[in-house]
Amino acid sequence: MKRWIAVDWGTTALRATLVEGEATQTRESGAGMNSLGREGFEPALLALVEDWLPAPVRVCGMAGARQGWHEAPYRSVPCTPLGDPVRVPASDPRLHATIVPGLSQRAPHPDVMRGEETQIAGVLATLPDFDGCLCLPGTHTKWVHVSAGEVISFLTCMTGELFALLSERSVLRHSLAGDGWDDAAFAEAAAEALSRPERLAARAFGLRAADLLHGQDAGTARATLSGLLVGAEMAAARPWWLGRDVVITGSDRTAPIYEAALAAEGITTRILPAGAMTLAGLASLEAP
Amino acid sequence: MKRWIAVDWGTTALRATLVEGEATQTRESGAGMNSLGREGFEPALLALVEDWLPAPVRVCGMAGARQGWHEAPYRSVPCTPLGDPVRVPASDPRLHATIVPGLSQRAPHPDVMRGEETQIAGVLATLPDFDGCLCLPGTHTKWVHVSAGEVISFLTCMTGELFALLSERSVLRHSLAGDGWDDAAFAEAAAEALSRPERLAARAFGLRAADLLHGQDAGTARATLSGLLVGAEMAAARPWWLGRDVVITGSDRTAPIYEAALAAEGITTRILPAGAMTLAGLASLEAP
Repeated sequence: MKRWIAVDWGTTALRATLVEGEATQTRESGAGMNSLGREGFEPALLALVEDWLPAPVRVCGMAGARQGWHEAPYRSVPCTPLGDPVRVPASDPRLHATIVPGLSQRAPHPDVMRGEETQIAGVLATLPDFDGCLCLPGTHTKWVHVSAGEVISFLTCMTGELFALLSERSVLRHSLAGDGWDDAAFAEAAAEALSRPERLAARAFGLRAADLLHGQDAGTARATLSGLLVGAEMAAARPWWLGRDVVITGSDRTAPIYEAALAAEGITTRILPAGAMTLAGLASLEAP
Repeated sequence: MKRWIAVDWGTTALRATLVEGEATQTRESGAGMNSLGREGFEPALLALVEDWLPAPVRVCGMAGARQGWHEAPYRSVPCTPLGDPVRVPASDPRLHATIVPGLSQRAPHPDVMRGEETQIAGVLATLPDFDGCLCLPGTHTKWVHVSAGEVISFLTCMTGELFALLSERSVLRHSLAGDGWDDAAFAEAAAEALSRPERLAARAFGLRAADLLHGQDAGTARATLSGLLVGAEMAAARPWWLGRDVVITGSDRTAPIYEAALAAEGITTRILPAGAMTLAGLASLEAP
């Protein structure tokens, strides 16, 4: 029975999954790239998975960045999502780890991804004939054109990071507190931003004013801010999703938001869970 | 000789100016509204100006907010910029302080200002027949339509706050470090955002990618981000500035940025310094 360890190593988290045939178990720690120096990666991984060794370790994500554990240089699109993994020179002889390269793009605009290429490979392993647009919501949402098994082009939008900064660190934090939500407000704001994206910075301040002037509900304000950001993003990403099959690979929280926004534009989507796609992508690699 | 104290009390700073005829002296402290509970305002002011008392104190800014020193309720536009100041009930008998009310707007969108109304009054004291658009750059930039001595309508954009959040707290901070600048990059980005404002969140991430892929200069990236934000803002504010005389009331740092962006659209502007306009506005009040 094949036994290996899948690792998704991002900027703020480290997630490892032991795969034994059909059985999996997953552990997570906060040892993301941002909290580690180069010498800190191997100990952080061993602390999480030492009792699972020996087993080959396949890593995707920011651990392959120049400032990460070991650089796995970008591959340039158009290309298949997954290239040859790069062997990490580990000190511990039990550790046989490889990192998959990220993808870069020079035209139509400079762009990069690390981690999402593995999810794309997972989608192609799940839907081998898929031809269309992949939407991968997150801190830095990716819109990806996939055709004939290759990544043709992609677009990254800082939508998730902008929402976090505005809702947690700007003057709006007073007016958006809590977890409330309002589907109708989201839909209205997304539609507005699709046609008037330039108003984002003004409409955002208007949420503070509406709170001060007539105590606007915080959930309505949260959903409106999200709708403004997602609507503007969708206007920018139109060349990626318009007239294409769209698959959303996101979390339980983010995927339905993009599903609703795309449905309002007449786009039917399928949702595939991000975690499972990462695992399917790493599983699709040749056994080391 | 008239002797009085002008106070500009914002969220992060407290600035007091002793006016004696033509002579002024200014002191500043970090005792802004954000760092003070209601009971902290009077001691913070006394700590700064006690040796100047007795002298009437005229206050503008966030000290008049509901969470400030003493509420000076918003006046609703259209109206003259400055309404009757509200007397602050102070414990110290030497302290005779008044706060000017801010302005609010219900239509065409909910909006508020506190502090800028005083600068508008200062501009009207300086240019009594001014009829046109005032641009007041800052954390929350205001675009104001002034006609026949009244504020007709205004628009607030969170441009300054968005620039600070993105350049200091987002993934872009690595690629925008320092104080570098690039006039041509600013102009190009502003023009692009005026016509394609929806691309902001994608173009912003592209600055990170351009750094990773070909080491883009940090000053070019800073100026580009500023241009993207100011260009999108100008698209939103077009109904305020288009075809109008424009006066910019800002700092030495921000005013030239807006001057350049407006000049690219064929708009000639005059610049009046923000600090002097605050003083002129408070000076225009009837002596208490």
